[in-house]
Amino acid sequence: MRRKGFLIVLSGPSGAGKNSVMNAVFPTIPNLKYSISVTTRPPRKGEVEGVDYFFRTEEEFDELIRQDKLLEYASFVGYRYGTPKDFVLEQIAEGNTVIMDIDIHGASQIREKMPEAVFVFLLPPTREELQKRLTLRGSEAEEAIKQRLQKSAEELKNIIHYDYFIINDQLSKAAEQLRHIIMSEWSRVSRVDIEELQKLWKGWGNS
Amino acid sequence: MRRKGFLIVLSGPSGAGKNSVMNAVFPTIPNLKYSISVTTRPPRKGEVEGVDYFFRTEEEFDELIRQDKLLEYASFVGYRYGTPKDFVLEQIAEGNTVIMDIDIHGASQIREKMPEAVFVFLLPPTREELQKRLTLRGSEAEEAIKQRLQKSAEELKNIIHYDYFIINDQLSKAAEQLRHIIMSEWSRVSRVDIEELQKLWKGWGNS
Repeated sequence: MRRKGFLIVLSGPSGAGKNSVMNAVFPTIPNLKYSISVTTRPPRKGEVEGVDYFFRTEEEFDELIRQDKLLEYASFVGYRYGTPKDFVLEQIAEGNTVIMDIDIHGASQIREKMPEAVFVFLLPPTREELQKRLTLRGSEAEEAIKQRLQKSAEELKNIIHYDYFIINDQLSKAAEQLRHIIMSEWSRVSRVDIEELQKLWKGWGNS
Repeated sequence: MRRKGFLIVLSGPSGAGKNSVMNAVFPTIPNLKYSISVTTRPPRKGEVEGVDYFFRTEEEFDELIRQDKLLEYASFVGYRYGTPKDFVLEQIAEGNTVIMDIDIHGASQIREKMPEAVFVFLLPPTREELQKRLTLRGSEAEEAIKQRLQKSAEELKNIIHYDYFIINDQLSKAAEQLRHIIMSEWSRVSRVDIEELQKLWKGWGNS
């Protein structure tokens, strides 16, 4: 039976392990695609249009917003980034699952435009573990890490707006749990084409 | 983190393979329990109270109904059968998942009393396959099989009231899919004790 795909939105504090979990689950799910962002940032060396990003001018980005072609968008150090709605909808129509990680503000915008998406919140197991992971990265000063922890505590309050949560205590277990969630969503009655399903039972009582 | 369990209700036409799928998934899920029915039928040889059934008199059964202690009940060849609410609630409170198979009418009663249960509809892959399975059982005449097929076609229309559906084309795959559903339901934000979750982030911003 033909089934439509869906969008999986993964949020969680910096240091929760969103990328590691997505990368671990990626090869285990058929028809899983990463969402590709649109940005006003110029391409870096080696970056390919339509693979790494969709590169657009400021005017083109304005036009995408005006035409309601973005599921969400935000600015980051002088450039704008967004999630193109058409790309996601095309993938879903083709029966693919699209996965993306995004902060709670982006997720909130997506929830408005696409409430049928699946929203997953990834958590570090404890405050101590989160602090350890952020410190081990070695890329930030103590004060910046304090700020990240503070921000994480605020972000966590948004978990009630998500469908699922995963505690990333152990990468392989967290990835397995995300896999269960994605696979189970394929079985949702609300995602099936009821007309397709009706074909199954046509004539069941007529023999 | 302590999590509450939940009730999984499995329906599907006779011949869909409900028992085979439940038995296949049972050893793969921790804390999974079968629901135990209450009945007015006398115990058969070897049947144990509280294991096979809760055996009750007609008067006791009436009292269970009056006190709203049954999630559903129905009559079958002169005896009454029901699902005791307290048993299910106790298991859930202890963090167990309770699984049961029941027809669409019983499921509909449970949905009224326990909308937070998880409702799964199991389907045979095709009409031909269902007919073949019913014929292979060898226990019923052609006319009875015709009636079962007719009834299945009617039952299938109720699939829209279920959360998930599984097409039982291959037993191992159907069991795996039920496993994904049960495991993913453990990650539902709506099932977690938010107070327990809050303990996680207490003090995250205070160091």
